[in-house]
Amino acid sequence: MASGKSASGEDSLIARYFRPLATDPGAFGLDDDAAALKPDGSDIVVTTDAIVEGVHFLPDDPPDTVARKALRVNLSDLAAKGATPAGFVLTLALRQADEAWLKPFAAALGKDAAEFACPLLGGDTVSTPGPLMVSITAFGRVPPGKMVHRSGAKPGDRVMVTGTIGDAALGLAILRGGKVHAAADKAASEMLIGRYRVPQPRVAMASIVRDHASASMDVSDGLAGDLAKLCGVSGVSAVIEMERVPLSGPAGDLVARGIVGREMLVAGGDDYEILCTVPEGRVEAFRLAAQPCRVAVTEIGTIVQAGSAPTFRDASGKEIALERLSYSHF
Amino acid sequence: MASGKSASGEDSLIARYFRPLATDPGAFGLDDDAAALKPDGSDIVVTTDAIVEGVHFLPDDPPDTVARKALRVNLSDLAAKGATPAGFVLTLALRQADEAWLKPFAAALGKDAAEFACPLLGGDTVSTPGPLMVSITAFGRVPPGKMVHRSGAKPGDRVMVTGTIGDAALGLAILRGGKVHAAADKAASEMLIGRYRVPQPRVAMASIVRDHASASMDVSDGLAGDLAKLCGVSGVSAVIEMERVPLSGPAGDLVARGIVGREMLVAGGDDYEILCTVPEGRVEAFRLAAQPCRVAVTEIGTIVQAGSAPTFRDASGKEIALERLSYSHF
Repeated sequence: MASGKSASGEDSLIARYFRPLATDPGAFGLDDDAAALKPDGSDIVVTTDAIVEGVHFLPDDPPDTVARKALRVNLSDLAAKGATPAGFVLTLALRQADEAWLKPFAAALGKDAAEFACPLLGGDTVSTPGPLMVSITAFGRVPPGKMVHRSGAKPGDRVMVTGTIGDAALGLAILRGGKVHAAADKAASEMLIGRYRVPQPRVAMASIVRDHASASMDVSDGLAGDLAKLCGVSGVSAVIEMERVPLSGPAGDLVARGIVGREMLVAGGDDYEILCTVPEGRVEAFRLAAQPCRVAVTEIGTIVQAGSAPTFRDASGKEIALERLSYSHF
Repeated sequence: MASGKSASGEDSLIARYFRPLATDPGAFGLDDDAAALKPDGSDIVVTTDAIVEGVHFLPDDPPDTVARKALRVNLSDLAAKGATPAGFVLTLALRQADEAWLKPFAAALGKDAAEFACPLLGGDTVSTPGPLMVSITAFGRVPPGKMVHRSGAKPGDRVMVTGTIGDAALGLAILRGGKVHAAADKAASEMLIGRYRVPQPRVAMASIVRDHASASMDVSDGLAGDLAKLCGVSGVSAVIEMERVPLSGPAGDLVARGIVGREMLVAGGDDYEILCTVPEGRVEAFRLAAQPCRVAVTEIGTIVQAGSAPTFRDASGKEIALERLSYSHF
């Protein structure tokens, strides 16, 4: 935490707000230039994800939700890889050292770090004239060679997804105004905006994914596009039954009323659910193992041989054309 | 590399420019959401440092030097901690996917990664409306418990520094115009600007620091300020002989001509040299071990008991007042 172009102003902020989060002995109380992860025979799984103001979160999002989102998008990756959280380092690019922002940011980050047993190990605070950016590199542990890859899906495997899909895309749509904003009542809006701002990483599912999934990733850019990536790397394709894609109550209601189509929900981003493939013979064991996690796991389709892009079909088996598969930057 | 709000545009850029850098098997060809570091009984040392356009590098710095600086500031931290490089992850925040910039950036990053045996393991590319930012988290290995800390300096230990001090601050001053720019000839300017843009991380010194130093850090914010931090964490103070602070030919010339004072050089940033303390009885062994590295190591002073801030003294033993100790952001 002490490296980079830092100075006394930064150092005292770090001491005040971030040192209490550095509970792991390998963080050395943030008094050093580096942290240390102890060997225990595990592979160390490393993932890195950054969120940028105006791109991944909105300028008026509360600092506590920004902190939570920054950490949770990384925890979501670890969970999808079958890894148990071990800690994280934080790079914070700030326009100014604004204590009214930093205090709730650090407090929320600390709460999440404790809840998910993923302590702050170190970091770097830099000034920027531009948008606020939070970049986190998170570490997890898996038994040697047991990280679950995007590759590994085989024809016949069932396509499973945790939780519900499309809520975050609807939450963002509501924050931006327009027809979804006009159509959603207060309770639905709050729930959907909450799903956009504060993802629920499926950390408890990590060992279950490790034990049963043939391939896995988290859904961050949109179910359809992420499934296409998983299939591409696995050298397979998939057939998804659109009606089986799990929706929350508020999302299902907006679909039923014709405000949005399911096509928008499977192409929206920020779900942070686990998308994995499970061999047919293990689906029941996967379901049973997931029950104590109190996370819905839903079978939405089947892996098929490569040949064409994954397809989404309606109840009659007819292919649904998707205009876009996922969120795109460039 | 494939995580975050990525999409096909990003994915193809990654494939073209960054996949060739992902030579380590634990990078999984950047086809996954995470990388894996294999256990070999070592502690994994983790450091993270970000550089921001307009803050840590200039908007018209060439992309190859930006790449090198981003990786090398992290390699410098690893070396100072006594760690051997093992790999890094990269977060790149770009205004646009500009291939004319990305191509030389990736090529230079790959060259440095190969030279320092520190392969790209993964990363995230995000769009930003603001300044370009390169955030790297680098990993190194040390035998268990052998990371060299900032704490550990004891009264009587000698204060050692590698290379030369103040060149990068002079290089930045030249790039900004003004009196240093006017006073430095072409060859001196090129050398000093080179030291600002492309630090020389003392990677070869890692095992020597580990074997001999009682405390160590890299000089990134200015020798005086960084020494004060090391002393603070170690619970000691130091007396430095200003005349012994090693200067390059061009820097020494500018001092001799009265263009800049040594005070400016010891408070400038971006040296990326190793500042360490070595027990008196090991100084000779430290020097001998460093010889094959072809890096100058210079004894500049002595650790003393805590009581007041570290002091810089002139040849007559008189304390030199420093107006500032290091670069400050906030």
